[in-house]
Amino acid sequence: MRVREHTPADWPQVWPIVRDIVRAGETFTYDPAMTEEQAHDIWVKGPPAVTAVAVIDDRVVGSANAYANRPGPGAHVSTASFMVAAEARGKGVGTALCRFVMAWAKEQGFAGMQFNAVAASNHRAIDLYRRLGFEIVGTVPGAFHHPTLGRVGLHVMYCEF
Amino acid sequence: MRVREHTPADWPQVWPIVRDIVRAGETFTYDPAMTEEQAHDIWVKGPPAVTAVAVIDDRVVGSANAYANRPGPGAHVSTASFMVAAEARGKGVGTALCRFVMAWAKEQGFAGMQFNAVAASNHRAIDLYRRLGFEIVGTVPGAFHHPTLGRVGLHVMYCEF
Repeated sequence: MRVREHTPADWPQVWPIVRDIVRAGETFTYDPAMTEEQAHDIWVKGPPAVTAVAVIDDRVVGSANAYANRPGPGAHVSTASFMVAAEARGKGVGTALCRFVMAWAKEQGFAGMQFNAVAASNHRAIDLYRRLGFEIVGTVPGAFHHPTLGRVGLHVMYCEF
Repeated sequence: MRVREHTPADWPQVWPIVRDIVRAGETFTYDPAMTEEQAHDIWVKGPPAVTAVAVIDDRVVGSANAYANRPGPGAHVSTASFMVAAEARGKGVGTALCRFVMAWAKEQGFAGMQFNAVAASNHRAIDLYRRLGFEIVGTVPGAFHHPTLGRVGLHVMYCEF
């Protein structure tokens, strides 16, 4: 598996991953009815942000983006998001993507990385983030409406570099 | 003092309030170099959001907006922001604006209201929010660069309705 920066030619493989995850509504606070164009605008970020893909045998199996979490007096903290194709989960793709964007954010001089809205039911992601040094800073109770579990908390997670 | 919905004719009085607060860089994670047009786009929100003004003797002394904090599975939680003119602070303007948008959000059926980034040094705002039922859910350490205090925490605050 290789993680590298996203190129425009990757989008046809990234979109189905984004589409399926957003439509499932189990992990991201995105509109499940999002169009391909809206998804591209939200997901694929040029400089000063970065978008990356994880590739196995020339096939895109995951994607990530990272950028300043807030403008102005909050611009020294980064944020990032990750999506892994259903068929590629459990293979370390998310970990590789997270390491990639953390390295990018450190290089850019960010002071840390914050995840603003991690569904408390997304144990796989939470375990992964914890292994890489993130801590749960707090949890907004019931702030995520999971399609089968109902309202679950949304964690704010942070890793200081 | 009266709080009512914002109308286009209010903007010439709202903009100097927004401009001075954003340029001071002490409370909002907005770009201090924000133009008037950018500020209008960020601050004045039409339906399904609300923008309100606090008025004393036909003079606008504060403004607030409120809307869904996140799309999709997060859309049942609202968020809001408040700005009060320097010369009108300590008169209950912020409290009146906060009560107004909380009432609006309850009417709209939101489950609660979340503030995503309250500078830990903004004691006046934190005390006000606490009096109205908000709690600090967590604090991202050093996530706000205050112009004189340096890096202070950013609180996530929440009030369940």
